[in-house]
Amino acid sequence: MRIDAVDFYYLSMPEVLDIGDGSQDALLVRVQAGEYVGWGECEAAPLVSIASFVCPMSHSACKPVRDSVLGQPIDTPDDIRRIGDLVRAQSLDLLQADHTLSGIDVALWDLLGRRFGEPVYRLLGDARATPKLPYASQLFGDTPEETLQKARAVRAQGYRAAKFGWGPYGHGTPDADADQVFAAREGLGDDGVLLIDAGTVWLDDVDAARQRLDALRACRVRWLEEPFVSGALGAYRQLAAHAGPVRLAAGEGCHTYHMAEQLLDYAGLGYIQIDAGRIGGISVARKVVTAARARGVTYVNHTFTSHLALSASLQPYAASEPDAICEYPVEPRQLALAITAEHILPDADGRIYLPEGPGLGLTVNTAGFAPYLVDVEIRVRGKTIYRTPAL
Amino acid sequence: MRIDAVDFYYLSMPEVLDIGDGSQDALLVRVQAGEYVGWGECEAAPLVSIASFVCPMSHSACKPVRDSVLGQPIDTPDDIRRIGDLVRAQSLDLLQADHTLSGIDVALWDLLGRRFGEPVYRLLGDARATPKLPYASQLFGDTPEETLQKARAVRAQGYRAAKFGWGPYGHGTPDADADQVFAAREGLGDDGVLLIDAGTVWLDDVDAARQRLDALRACRVRWLEEPFVSGALGAYRQLAAHAGPVRLAAGEGCHTYHMAEQLLDYAGLGYIQIDAGRIGGISVARKVVTAARARGVTYVNHTFTSHLALSASLQPYAASEPDAICEYPVEPRQLALAITAEHILPDADGRIYLPEGPGLGLTVNTAGFAPYLVDVEIRVRGKTIYRTPAL
Repeated sequence: MRIDAVDFYYLSMPEVLDIGDGSQDALLVRVQAGEYVGWGECEAAPLVSIASFVCPMSHSACKPVRDSVLGQPIDTPDDIRRIGDLVRAQSLDLLQADHTLSGIDVALWDLLGRRFGEPVYRLLGDARATPKLPYASQLFGDTPEETLQKARAVRAQGYRAAKFGWGPYGHGTPDADADQVFAAREGLGDDGVLLIDAGTVWLDDVDAARQRLDALRACRVRWLEEPFVSGALGAYRQLAAHAGPVRLAAGEGCHTYHMAEQLLDYAGLGYIQIDAGRIGGISVARKVVTAARARGVTYVNHTFTSHLALSASLQPYAASEPDAICEYPVEPRQLALAITAEHILPDADGRIYLPEGPGLGLTVNTAGFAPYLVDVEIRVRGKTIYRTPAL
Repeated sequence: MRIDAVDFYYLSMPEVLDIGDGSQDALLVRVQAGEYVGWGECEAAPLVSIASFVCPMSHSACKPVRDSVLGQPIDTPDDIRRIGDLVRAQSLDLLQADHTLSGIDVALWDLLGRRFGEPVYRLLGDARATPKLPYASQLFGDTPEETLQKARAVRAQGYRAAKFGWGPYGHGTPDADADQVFAAREGLGDDGVLLIDAGTVWLDDVDAARQRLDALRACRVRWLEEPFVSGALGAYRQLAAHAGPVRLAAGEGCHTYHMAEQLLDYAGLGYIQIDAGRIGGISVARKVVTAARARGVTYVNHTFTSHLALSASLQPYAASEPDAICEYPVEPRQLALAITAEHILPDADGRIYLPEGPGLGLTVNTAGFAPYLVDVEIRVRGKTIYRTPAL
């Protein structure tokens, strides 16, 4: 069978706030091949990814993503990988293409899973999925008091791990940042796993990051995430040498396998965090899982949007160690929840399980997300090349 | 003074061919601040870069590029660098943003150069520009015979150096590739500098690349360019260990400073090739010049479009060693030539000189490029957020 149609749906909250909350919009992808349908999600900047799918060709290595996808045979997982290679070659000079491909790749895995009646992780070669320990991923409060309340709230909800990030962290003094971390630890309690996300705030300034280490150690923070931008390998390695027992985590910005490999090889990480909606999809994320295991670095999903994206992000490392940690967005906007009919919820022990249904194991709820659909039209030379498709 | 307006102009040949010729379209940027105007050019995928400038915000680290540019103070080179940092922070999750920023950064340097009556390279701190030895950059012929004729033609035009790339190279057998390289050497003559561009064809397959080395050595090829994708640092390093005296060249795919730094630190390159229209503009390219010198790697421009882009690509390493090599597109499409009133032409000795006028030293010819203007309209929620501006 062949890929007959690829449709993009841009969803957004009526108002998008200027905060580090990636669940305020979404770009869904629906792929159809014969009688089968699969859904995926691209991370970030929906309009730009749509443009990269439909834009006119610039030259032979800068084609719209569409040219490498529509009409392609899709019968086996190898076809998905072949399509990914084709996109990377034919859209080599189209920077946005990796993000766009990501949602398509996810949708193709969902589609093949449905065709074969298997969860995606089984198509990837894993016999069973182990439960994960979700960490409640959220933004710092504007004040330590607010962070304290947020930490108490997630603890009361039964989470055994929590991550705080962005907001004021790293923008004030080291003492102000320490107050935030101590507040998080106090609210979470002594036995919770505490993670801190600096959101690349120090770019590649090792000294700025080092000034925060004492507080992180005192609060027994398991990892410090993204003190630097993804490419600052030397800065990561230098900080890692000083940070023990706090480990460094990074990788969400990777949009190719090789970027992740470089982090694994040169940055001294304890954890590599991959967003299947950015790195080129489940196919590339799976390659990173294998590479991370070979190097003794722990793989963790990155996801901050819908449960469709959450399921996609978990498939590549479904067969992790029991109780491996996973990112879990606890304060998503309504649109992110509206995308799927079912949700992946923690059980009484605070664990989550991958859905066992075919594909990603979730039903996309078109009626649910319809109110958030953004009408887009792109016209080139008087001809409409994209118009938000009907549901 | 403040940035009052940023306008994008998408140009294209009426027909874009499926060949590796990046001069078939172009994205020009005009920036206005007070009474001053500057022009720049972004490499590749015009519609996608336009979308990244005007798209709605996704969250605080995924804003349209516009939000970090319009209204910003612009009085000194430090303002240009500050704006670049702001774009990188506020569009962290918008992958295309680096390409879009690149043209804006170039236009801002042009604008400040015009304001202060100085060429850009002088604003960068170089007292004088040294002449460059342009290499005639072109595609392989479809057959060795065609390549032979192309090489003879550039030699007859007085070029002392030539690069052949893309086309069939790397797609057939090592013997077929060798025939192409021998044809290029024969046509260019014994004394010409010969460069070969593999266009990332072997991805990260070191063995495939090694099979081509004997022919490259026999033909005294100075560099083998992009045998692998930009991120395949380990593959580059392995090949470099076997390739002498042929040196490796790479870097055109870099869209951040750190990507270039990684190539410098880990890939065993002899040459780093930076496209100011992709890496974030002249500001970032200049950082790479400094880093390359510190590591004994030779910096070379990458450019394959207009003379506006050529001038921009030369400014960061204007004060190179005399007769440093530079990329020079010899078979650009008409639109690329139509963009500027003046052109940077080799003298009788086959050298080129940077323009000495203010800014990039070239006059953008709006009447000349008007026939190539592509009409684009982007509508979101019924409102036009981009329409090709009037000239």
